[in-house]
Amino acid sequence: MKNIRVVVPIVTTSFRSAEELKIFEGPGYQISVSHVESGPASIECEFDKILAVPDTVAKIIESERQGADAVVIDCMCDPGLKPGREAVKIPVLGPCETSMHLAAMLGQKFSVVTILNRLAPQYENQSKVYGVTQKLASVRSVEIPVLDLKKDLEATTKAMTEQAIVAVEQDGASVIIFGCTGMLGCAEGVRAGLLKRGLEAPVIDPVPATIRLAAALVESGLSHSKLTFPPPPVKQVLGFTQKELTDRR
Amino acid sequence: MKNIRVVVPIVTTSFRSAEELKIFEGPGYQISVSHVESGPASIECEFDKILAVPDTVAKIIESERQGADAVVIDCMCDPGLKPGREAVKIPVLGPCETSMHLAAMLGQKFSVVTILNRLAPQYENQSKVYGVTQKLASVRSVEIPVLDLKKDLEATTKAMTEQAIVAVEQDGASVIIFGCTGMLGCAEGVRAGLLKRGLEAPVIDPVPATIRLAAALVESGLSHSKLTFPPPPVKQVLGFTQKELTDRR
Amino acid sequence: MKNIRVVVPIVTTSFRSAEELKIFEGPGYQISVSHVESGPASIECEFDKILAVPDTVAKIIESERQGADAVVIDCMCDPGLKPGREAVKIPVLGPCETSMHLAAMLGQKFSVVTILNRLAPQYENQSKVYGVTQKLASVRSVEIPVLDLKKDLEATTKAMTEQAIVAVEQDGASVIIFGCTGMLGCAEGVRAGLLKRGLEAPVIDPVPATIRLAAALVESGLSHSKLTFPPPPVKQVLGFTQKELTDRR
Amino acid sequence: MKNIRVVVPIVTTSFRSAEELKIFEGPGYQISVSHVESGPASIECEFDKILAVPDTVAKIIESERQGADAVVIDCMCDPGLKPGREAVKIPVLGPCETSMHLAAMLGQKFSVVTILNRLAPQYENQSKVYGVTQKLASVRSVEIPVLDLKKDLEATTKAMTEQAIVAVEQDGASVIIFGCTGMLGCAEGVRAGLLKRGLEAPVIDPVPATIRLAAALVESGLSHSKLTFPPPPVKQVLGFTQKELTDRR
Amino acid sequence: MKNIRVVVPIVTTSFRSAEELKIFEGPGYQISVSHVESGPASIECEFDKILAVPDTVAKIIESERQGADAVVIDCMCDPGLKPGREAVKIPVLGPCETSMHLAAMLGQKFSVVTILNRLAPQYENQSKVYGVTQKLASVRSVEIPVLDLKKDLEATTKAMTEQAIVAVEQDGASVIIFGCTGMLGCAEGVRAGLLKRGLEAPVIDPVPATIRLAAALVESGLSHSKLTFPPPPVKQVLGFTQKELTDRR
Amino acid sequence: MKNIRVVVPIVTTSFRSAEELKIFEGPGYQISVSHVESGPASIECEFDKILAVPDTVAKIIESERQGADAVVIDCMCDPGLKPGREAVKIPVLGPCETSMHLAAMLGQKFSVVTILNRLAPQYENQSKVYGVTQKLASVRSVEIPVLDLKKDLEATTKAMTEQAIVAVEQDGASVIIFGCTGMLGCAEGVRAGLLKRGLEAPVIDPVPATIRLAAALVESGLSHSKLTFPPPPVKQVLGFTQKELTDRR
Repeated sequence: MKNIRVVVPIVTTSFRSAEELKIFEGPGYQISVSHVESGPASIECEFDKILAVPDTVAKIIESERQGADAVVIDCMCDPGLKPGREAVKIPVLGPCETSMHLAAMLGQKFSVVTILNRLAPQYENQSKVYGVTQKLASVRSVEIPVLDLKKDLEATTKAMTEQAIVAVEQDGASVIIFGCTGMLGCAEGVRAGLLKRGLEAPVIDPVPATIRLAAALVESGLSHSKLTFPPPPVKQVLGFTQKELTDRR
Repeated sequence: MKNIRVVVPIVTTSFRSAEELKIFEGPGYQISVSHVESGPASIECEFDKILAVPDTVAKIIESERQGADAVVIDCMCDPGLKPGREAVKIPVLGPCETSMHLAAMLGQKFSVVTILNRLAPQYENQSKVYGVTQKLASVRSVEIPVLDLKKDLEATTKAMTEQAIVAVEQDGASVIIFGCTGMLGCAEGVRAGLLKRGLEAPVIDPVPATIRLAAALVESGLSHSKLTFPPPPVKQVLGFTQKELTDRR
Repeated sequence: MKNIRVVVPIVTTSFRSAEELKIFEGPGYQISVSHVESGPASIECEFDKILAVPDTVAKIIESERQGADAVVIDCMCDPGLKPGREAVKIPVLGPCETSMHLAAMLGQKFSVVTILNRLAPQYENQSKVYGVTQKLASVRSVEIPVLDLKKDLEATTKAMTEQAIVAVEQDGASVIIFGCTGMLGCAEGVRAGLLKRGLEAPVIDPVPATIRLAAALVESGLSHSKLTFPPPPVKQVLGFTQKELTDRR
Repeated sequence: MKNIRVVVPIVTTSFRSAEELKIFEGPGYQISVSHVESGPASIECEFDKILAVPDTVAKIIESERQGADAVVIDCMCDPGLKPGREAVKIPVLGPCETSMHLAAMLGQKFSVVTILNRLAPQYENQSKVYGVTQKLASVRSVEIPVLDLKKDLEATTKAMTEQAIVAVEQDGASVIIFGCTGMLGCAEGVRAGLLKRGLEAPVIDPVPATIRLAAALVESGLSHSKLTFPPPPVKQVLGFTQKELTDRR
Repeated sequence: MKNIRVVVPIVTTSFRSAEELKIFEGPGYQISVSHVESGPASIECEFDKILAVPDTVAKIIESERQGADAVVIDCMCDPGLKPGREAVKIPVLGPCETSMHLAAMLGQKFSVVTILNRLAPQYENQSKVYGVTQKLASVRSVEIPVLDLKKDLEATTKAMTEQAIVAVEQDGASVIIFGCTGMLGCAEGVRAGLLKRGLEAPVIDPVPATIRLAAALVESGLSHSKLTFPPPPVKQVLGFTQKELTDRR
Repeated sequence: MKNIRVVVPIVTTSFRSAEELKIFEGPGYQISVSHVESGPASIECEFDKILAVPDTVAKIIESERQGADAVVIDCMCDPGLKPGREAVKIPVLGPCETSMHLAAMLGQKFSVVTILNRLAPQYENQSKVYGVTQKLASVRSVEIPVLDLKKDLEATTKAMTEQAIVAVEQDGASVIIFGCTGMLGCAEGVRAGLLKRGLEAPVIDPVPATIRLAAALVESGLSHSKLTFPPPPVKQVLGFTQKELTDRR
């Protein structure tokens, strides 16, 4: 039985429970969850992201030391993805990178339906770094902050469906990716909403899709390249208390 | 228990046995195999490929009709990938598309180590259509025909390792993809050869990796977009005997 | 006197007559026509295309054996272009590749006005493989099936003109390409319609333009590169009756 | 009988004679030649080019006024291509733009074998503006000035062949373009030299290829888009004596 | 005290006075101005541009001979930028190249608000040659000829603001560049207009920004690369009277 | 008198002194320096970088609150560039982004000569996000850790010169950028070394060039776009003690 660790990079622990993810466990793997203790209440900009990263990386290192077989970062900004990969050997997956590549495989172009329009440059830049920028049709947003998404899940799903329709009909998307892991559970509703409009398109819910891809990688014995992500050199670090960050080995 | 069908697009039935693939079955899925009856002995150019495609698509349709949950095409030219997706609703995966996206996730750039140099344009073009051309470092070849690969597996692995080293050291690759599904089983040897040279890089064996991704998609309830791949319109077809090709529904 | 052979890749022989193409003969070349005997009634998707390809390639090989100086494939999907080039030494031209490069020379950006919206991904992918994707403004469609195009030629031309205007005014096209060779003969009407709107733009009718480029290549002694398109290796082929496909030399 | 006018943009009239081009006349068109009277002795850099352009454009306008059906500019820097197109309605072709698009059609990648390495950025930039930059493998040079090319044609051809071989074997080219119209007549020698090495690749001699494409465009009734190249507005011009430049109509 | 020379490439001397530019002098540099004597009244197309270039280059050479420390060309078509750089060693800056790179640094995407829609292809092509084409959101125009811009500066600013708003809201621009140096002085108005709409975006007035960048380069001891821009070879030139053009050293 | 603040993102305070930067002060601006108190001893990978970012951003905010007119980050990884811009209104410049754009203006292609080969992916990714990836020729490294660069400055300069020569001669670079701000002061030596080899190319020393560009932006009244970098929303942050990070306003 393999163990996929989900690292939640925000300090709002109520945002994600282990129970919520249990339903995505598969025949060969279990899911465990850990939250950062240092960082922002939610991630909605570059500023939030960089406050989340150090402890996220600490938790990634801790996951490996505790025997996890792979790590999934629970945020579409993929905070800590690259430094985390430098620090460990087990696969570390970001839902944004994973979803973008899956979407690129499933259709001609994909759009990201996210929370706030201000995140559009971030998704565009990630698509460039991940190498799939030619497959990105657009970024659309519902203008609902992360922590408000679940206040009225029906309204959220409705707003997301509307943006997904615009993405398909105006921007040429044929696959939809959710641009916030707080949208977990809305995929079926958005897919149904598109279908009602005659649009039969896959809707990728990033966290479960990434968990399954992580399991597939573990089964395949594959992880990130140590040529791209060699271990960090040993050196002094001031101002951080996590031993995972200060005590490099 | 899910069923992943592997369609072998060449008429050399000895090339791939169901037994050979059993070891890649996972806790949640079984693997079945079918071979085309019409097509070339092996696929080493565009000409070979187009002779393989019609019956490959017939077998993809047959797979769906027989209840398979997903189809994996057993050739790195991905013959029949797009028309097959038009014809069915279950996920159809090509090992080239899948491996390229996996490789793009695992490192900065990847190289394809294939059989013949003449296939280089084909891999370059596929990387353009799949949207990952900026991540392709190079295509290198061992100049061994498909059906000779297994004649001296040790020599084959040695030649592949040499090309993989060149790909890393001269072309800047950090991930290696095999450019022929006939190289099945050489990944561990090539990875060890790279490691002996101090190069710690993932080596993707396309068929098992694609089978596992297919299983992950099935588990996620995801398939290709019907906006990109709508069903073929009903029309007359002459000169083919497969009912899957002539009797569109 | 040179001989340009037009290969029609659909079994609807009424679609194209030799007489219809006579008017495109020039001072130095004649035009002959051959139709496939195996394949679909029309080509409107990837599925149709792959059924057309084997016999199209057989006819390309036959053309060379019969002494033709060049071959033009009569379909904007360019079925059989690459495998056909592997199999013969005389120039083989696809109207899509040729028109896209001509259009790229004549203006800043071009749009394809085609029959069905479902073909848009195919044109985008072809522009990527042909290397002119940065010059493609958009793909627009009239939503008329191939075999209905000539039922009401006036209505067809009107619909095409409307889409051409949208392509210019909204998508930034400065050249129009027809996205189906069944639109033969509509160029003058569409050009006039654009002009009436004050838009002076070239409208490329793919078949005559490609025939003339084929003649220009023949006169120049140029053909496709055998480095990119080396001859197919000799090997067994099952399930095809055309000797051009089974008897490689 | 159509008339293709070749405009020679340098003041060295001995560089190109009408007789030399006669052999490229075809069944449907004659070739006439005119030389600029103002400009440099040869074009080997941006500085040379801009001195050639004004009178080249004057000669392009003169060509149209004299009834020519198309103009070919006799220099691989394509001097005056864009302003010339603004000023006239007949097709104006540059050998660089034309050869690059032809080469893109004939093989996977092309290289330019030119006179001086200093021209490499210019060819790279032209490939970007012409939209075929992804098909450019490399620019290689023989380091022989334009006006010395014909001093020892055998040595020139030998040097060109060597660079063409490097372009194919090291840079991945499958088509060769000459990077100076002063190399006229060397194509057969370079092609033979490549063949002797086992490399069967098209070698494009830009001037004859462009003349034939011009004839094909004339026959097709196609010219550059007036949406991209609208006529220049009427305005005062000082310092030029050519009435074609000062008297806009 | 350094000396930045502004070369005005049009013969309408009233277009730009030295006084007008005085306000952009900084603590370490003075500004001087020279006008071409040969060329067009204004630059609004490729045809105008090429008439401006020879004397612009003569004035660039003259500037260096007179001891200027850097040259700024006063036109967004950057006439003479590349040949001028070949001819001199002091930095030569074009406001288009400079503004596009500054804009690329200041925000995710930029739009050019220019005089006439016919200039759009020119800006697109310049962005390709300058290497920032992925940062160009759009080109928008006010359809006011250069020499009419100052007739009603309020109306001009209003029209520019409207186009800037469209560029931001519809095209996704986050930075605005003026597409004509005749728009000098409108930046504050356009910025205020955007702000009134709630859009806080930098508006780049190309001439002062380029002057300051020129001063920064001078201070840094940096100039263009002589590997890209080597001196023009000595050769005969006919038809030009400027000694800077005919007497190469 | 303007004030340019240089923020040093590593805790090794001996790495950079205010005195060292005095020589780059100009007629209109002074330079001040601040160091992070929390972070790594040096930055040589993604892991180091993310530990440097939070306090770097705190120092950027502090700089604005203390009245600085612009901030220059003293590291070629540009740590804190994007979140810092969200948090303040004064210009924040990264030496990598700035140098890459300057280099793109000064020549056809540039190479980065950096400390360790492991940083190559980081520079490639930055060039993608900054939009100048087509101008990047290569990344070359001397394999000397940051804090060892100054141990033997002569040996460092020699190693850098060797890599710069390889970048020009093999990779096609025409401009060199230093890939570590610890290389400060080596530009003249590398430029001389290139010149001795006959290669006249600009060598960009990132920190002084960026300081001067910062001064030019301040003088121009330009800063980053608030459309791309809107202020971070107010929210709870745990685990950080810097009031600049926890107390958003």
